[in-house]
Amino acid sequence: MPRYALLIEYDGRPFAGWQRQAGQPSVQAAVEEATVRFTGATATVHCAGRTDAGVHALGQVAHVDLDRDWPADTVAAALSFHLKPLPVVVLAAALVPGDFNARTSAIRRRYRYRIVNRRPRLALADGRAWHVGPVLDVAAMQGGAAALIGHHDFSSFRASHCQARSPVKTLDRLDIGREDESILIVAEARSFLHHQVRNMVGTLVLVGQGQWAPERVGQALAARDRRAAGPTAPSVGLYLVGVDYPGFAFP
Amino acid sequence: MPRYALLIEYDGRPFAGWQRQAGQPSVQAAVEEATVRFTGATATVHCAGRTDAGVHALGQVAHVDLDRDWPADTVAAALSFHLKPLPVVVLAAALVPGDFNARTSAIRRRYRYRIVNRRPRLALADGRAWHVGPVLDVAAMQGGAAALIGHHDFSSFRASHCQARSPVKTLDRLDIGREDESILIVAEARSFLHHQVRNMVGTLVLVGQGQWAPERVGQALAARDRRAAGPTAPSVGLYLVGVDYPGFAFP
Repeated sequence: MPRYALLIEYDGRPFAGWQRQAGQPSVQAAVEEATVRFTGATATVHCAGRTDAGVHALGQVAHVDLDRDWPADTVAAALSFHLKPLPVVVLAAALVPGDFNARTSAIRRRYRYRIVNRRPRLALADGRAWHVGPVLDVAAMQGGAAALIGHHDFSSFRASHCQARSPVKTLDRLDIGREDESILIVAEARSFLHHQVRNMVGTLVLVGQGQWAPERVGQALAARDRRAAGPTAPSVGLYLVGVDYPGFAFP
Repeated sequence: MPRYALLIEYDGRPFAGWQRQAGQPSVQAAVEEATVRFTGATATVHCAGRTDAGVHALGQVAHVDLDRDWPADTVAAALSFHLKPLPVVVLAAALVPGDFNARTSAIRRRYRYRIVNRRPRLALADGRAWHVGPVLDVAAMQGGAAALIGHHDFSSFRASHCQARSPVKTLDRLDIGREDESILIVAEARSFLHHQVRNMVGTLVLVGQGQWAPERVGQALAARDRRAAGPTAPSVGLYLVGVDYPGFAFP
């Protein structure tokens, strides 16, 4: 059966997350049901990053085996059509080798976290960003973030139910910048522990608020204990931006 | 009675527009009801630009007379509180002279129109932008826009039910730029005719699609006839960004 890679955008708000769960709406179930409506055959859709409830995607990648050799553009358009009216769109599809696996073939995942840092609550960005009222010191957050870059045991930033075999990961990038009232945090790594980005953001916000000195982030990392780090930032500010593969990119 | 200027952000989707209408939700009614809940007294809220159904605001300005001299920050916070859970927020309030009028004192209004120009339909930007599938030629749109800058009779871009006394307006700015898959159009003038921005955008998209040569925009303007210009762009892409006043700005 021909295998297709799918590039998927979604608004995470109406979903209990990517993964199929009994009795709850999920992105996976939505894409699988669209596949049935398109091809008439059931299929399992496997993704690169199983996003939690409320987390958005600009460029989730998944793979699926279809019944026959459809033109890639037809796959993307037909799945998007059958996904209506849900806020899930297949931006592109590509025929890939049978050993391509959206999760295990990925060599880099890129997340963006959006904070809106202002006193008034959010009207237009509600559900799309974390609202933080007190003014955040971005330079201090950048100072704290520097301690997290590199190859480390990230146990302090790992959800208790994380299923990864090892807490050791290599964080390639953790950039923090301000654009008007938004603070954008970009994190890149081959892979992340469960809640790692949200736990890093929640900790860096303590630094930005002046509750923590920047140096305490490195100390929290060294403790290898979840209780040493800060709280988990809300899901609504997190976006899976893109996933990279060796020798493959969407056209 | 002390007069306050209000800076208001809202998501236009749940509303039939700014203006109070019997039996329909409006931003005006929402802010007036929040005022009653805050002060106990009824009040009329007057705005700078009466946005249509679905049109958003990042910086609508309104004025209202309150029962007594509240601290400005209290006014903003209390109205925002009483507006919950609606997607309307009073970003700031300021005590202004009794002759300040949000509509007639304004000397410049700034609108932004957002097009998402890509083949797949919208998931995250649904209701926040106009989706245009065919690739738009931004340079051609800029060429067409140049003819609209300046002091002109804009009858060709005026809604049939527009109540302005004169169709003659001065368009100070009409910038068009691309940011990734978004095309952003910024329009500035002392005032606009009803639907003027959306009619200019709908016309420029004909140019961007190659259906119209850029020169035809100036010809449509010269015709002073609504039928000579292009269609009205959808409301969902339009944002009232800000309003300027002589000698007054929000802190």
